[in-house]
Amino acid sequence: MTEAPVTVEAHQSAILRAITPLPPASAELADAEGCVLAEDVTAAVSLPSFDNSSMDGYAVRAADTNHSSERSPATLPVKGEIAAGDTGVSRLAPGTAIRIMTGAQMPAGADSVVPVEWTNGSQDRVEIYRPVKPGNAVRYTGGDAAAGETLLEKGVRMRPMQIAVAASAGRTKVQVRPRPRVVVLSTGNELTEPGAPLVPGRIWDSNSYMIAAAAREAGAAACRRSAVPDDTAGVLPALEEQLHHADLLVTTGGVSMGGEHDVVKAALRELGTVTFTKVAMQPGMPQGFGTIGDARVPIFTLPGNPVSAYVSFQLFVRPAIAALQGAADLSLPSVRATLTAGVRSPEGRRSYLRGVLSGDKVAPLSGQGSHQIAALGRANALIIVPERETQLPQGDVVDVLVLP
Amino acid sequence: MTEAPVTVEAHQSAILRAITPLPPASAELADAEGCVLAEDVTAAVSLPSFDNSSMDGYAVRAADTNHSSERSPATLPVKGEIAAGDTGVSRLAPGTAIRIMTGAQMPAGADSVVPVEWTNGSQDRVEIYRPVKPGNAVRYTGGDAAAGETLLEKGVRMRPMQIAVAASAGRTKVQVRPRPRVVVLSTGNELTEPGAPLVPGRIWDSNSYMIAAAAREAGAAACRRSAVPDDTAGVLPALEEQLHHADLLVTTGGVSMGGEHDVVKAALRELGTVTFTKVAMQPGMPQGFGTIGDARVPIFTLPGNPVSAYVSFQLFVRPAIAALQGAADLSLPSVRATLTAGVRSPEGRRSYLRGVLSGDKVAPLSGQGSHQIAALGRANALIIVPERETQLPQGDVVDVLVLP
Repeated sequence: MTEAPVTVEAHQSAILRAITPLPPASAELADAEGCVLAEDVTAAVSLPSFDNSSMDGYAVRAADTNHSSERSPATLPVKGEIAAGDTGVSRLAPGTAIRIMTGAQMPAGADSVVPVEWTNGSQDRVEIYRPVKPGNAVRYTGGDAAAGETLLEKGVRMRPMQIAVAASAGRTKVQVRPRPRVVVLSTGNELTEPGAPLVPGRIWDSNSYMIAAAAREAGAAACRRSAVPDDTAGVLPALEEQLHHADLLVTTGGVSMGGEHDVVKAALRELGTVTFTKVAMQPGMPQGFGTIGDARVPIFTLPGNPVSAYVSFQLFVRPAIAALQGAADLSLPSVRATLTAGVRSPEGRRSYLRGVLSGDKVAPLSGQGSHQIAALGRANALIIVPERETQLPQGDVVDVLVLP
Repeated sequence: MTEAPVTVEAHQSAILRAITPLPPASAELADAEGCVLAEDVTAAVSLPSFDNSSMDGYAVRAADTNHSSERSPATLPVKGEIAAGDTGVSRLAPGTAIRIMTGAQMPAGADSVVPVEWTNGSQDRVEIYRPVKPGNAVRYTGGDAAAGETLLEKGVRMRPMQIAVAASAGRTKVQVRPRPRVVVLSTGNELTEPGAPLVPGRIWDSNSYMIAAAAREAGAAACRRSAVPDDTAGVLPALEEQLHHADLLVTTGGVSMGGEHDVVKAALRELGTVTFTKVAMQPGMPQGFGTIGDARVPIFTLPGNPVSAYVSFQLFVRPAIAALQGAADLSLPSVRATLTAGVRSPEGRRSYLRGVLSGDKVAPLSGQGSHQIAALGRANALIIVPERETQLPQGDVVDVLVLP
């Protein structure tokens, strides 16, 4: 831990190099939500697969409406009706009209649709008050996508829109990478389970609840969590047991720069190859990452302060969960916003300050200490202060990570 | 449907006036994720509840380090050690030091902590190379929150940070409003279940999958979905049956301006009081909202085009789901971004164009037709073009809704 700190990006890259995506599996469309595609989804047929009307109206030949006007409407006999879902083949004779509904198949011989609002709405002889151009209100076969065209690319996360695209392409199952199983252990003799009485010197464990919830939000399967005492006899068996349930492990606490009480470090020396790194950031400078066990399960050792643990999770663990899923997009969304107040930052370290983003403005919260969890509960964004800056004035435009 | 269109805001307000939040219930903390608080969560004790060290080092009286320097260090005998989690009461005698770990309770009589990096690290007689100020590296009782202080307010959605705040306040259960049960029915004779063969004139149903997924994402419980034929005999029994399972109903299709094929409208006339409204927006002009059945279950009738249905969901159904949960924050997050290309919009209607937001730039997608679902699958944002504008040039700064 005596080397110069590495950059956030260097640590992120080192992590991602060690992550292998989970094997893909077939999932029902409804169960694929939040999973990441392991295949390209292509259009099985053209979308739409037939020419159809985009409005309620009359299918006609455009030429038959030439010169029509309010004063001198074109009048055409109405020869039937086509509703959405009708599958028979209709044919339009020149000089006639067929009533047609939104989404209904165009009849052969028609080249356009007159919206019902431009007519007298008759079911017998329709008066048309405006000429239409060929193609008016027609959605052509393949206008959305050609057959064979890629609609969703491998690596895309299946959100509601992507579910809709897959369904509209006729898919009921898709190949996805499953949600990683994440196990969270918070360590520390000072930890008391919430609900139990608190004695001076102890705090209620919040990290394991927070990181488990954050992992689920980031795409992980339901996570196990527990708090264990800060001794090798507690940590080592807990880690070994959980290895069999985990695609990824996260510990919090037990890794400060100090020394002999850092039993997570001691335990990991026995189980795997974990590197402890200073990262040039605040909060969250002491980071650990590696793999343990025969299955080489990735493990993160996050700092024990709740705010440090949370920020570290979003910067390092979230991309790893996404990478296990084979996701193309690994990071939190980033926007630019104007500071409503000045901020400070230690020299040579990139600060991630808790803030409230609203429109194109971001307000730094008071209570930026890395143990100050109350302010974290009000934040919806992390304000980034670059390494080279020690303060930024009100009105400066900054990069902001949008918190989930 | 012949009146002048109403604004998006007016329709949103009419909906929210009709929504009553669901009754609150107690939830285990881990199950509360994504639910909305129905109570204020206060600090049961001060946070932190005892003075403690923010670093590994030595608890001292600051006065005993006066005038210390590298050349002429203060030297103090080390009288024991306090680790995080130790609960005994220690007392520091003047002119001595006690080793102390991050998070450990300060001994009585000490007013500051000398970081281990400023010392020779001795366990016996510590040499101190810099004077410390009183309060250095001490986190005082209540420095994060005073006992009784409100940490989370009623109406807040329980995301990972809020879970952490509740846990750190010692809570294992919180009062929340449950996730609403949402039932989605897509209607239309043209609908074929994905996976079944498609004949010309028919399309695969995507709306019910999409809206069910969007509802879950917006905080609803696992949603039922089905597609039903576009006739009263199909729609009416389906609605009546689902009423008993639903806190909120959504239909898609069957409500175009045209007329006699709009069986959702016909069915609803028999079941409840639903108002059909033109909203000055694109896509999604024809909207319907009301309540049905003895329990007055809210029902939305969304347009059948997938893009229209999706945009309508985000603008109108999402806030209703949030309001059923008693959420303080009802809408999608909004940011400002610069257009990378010009856009067009019909006069008098507010457009919601699909786009890709990246940093402070937003790129409009091609394929903005309301049936063009392929482009929707690539969007992560909706670009808002105000009612008064018919075009906006590249470089203009616009409001953008960030899609979930």
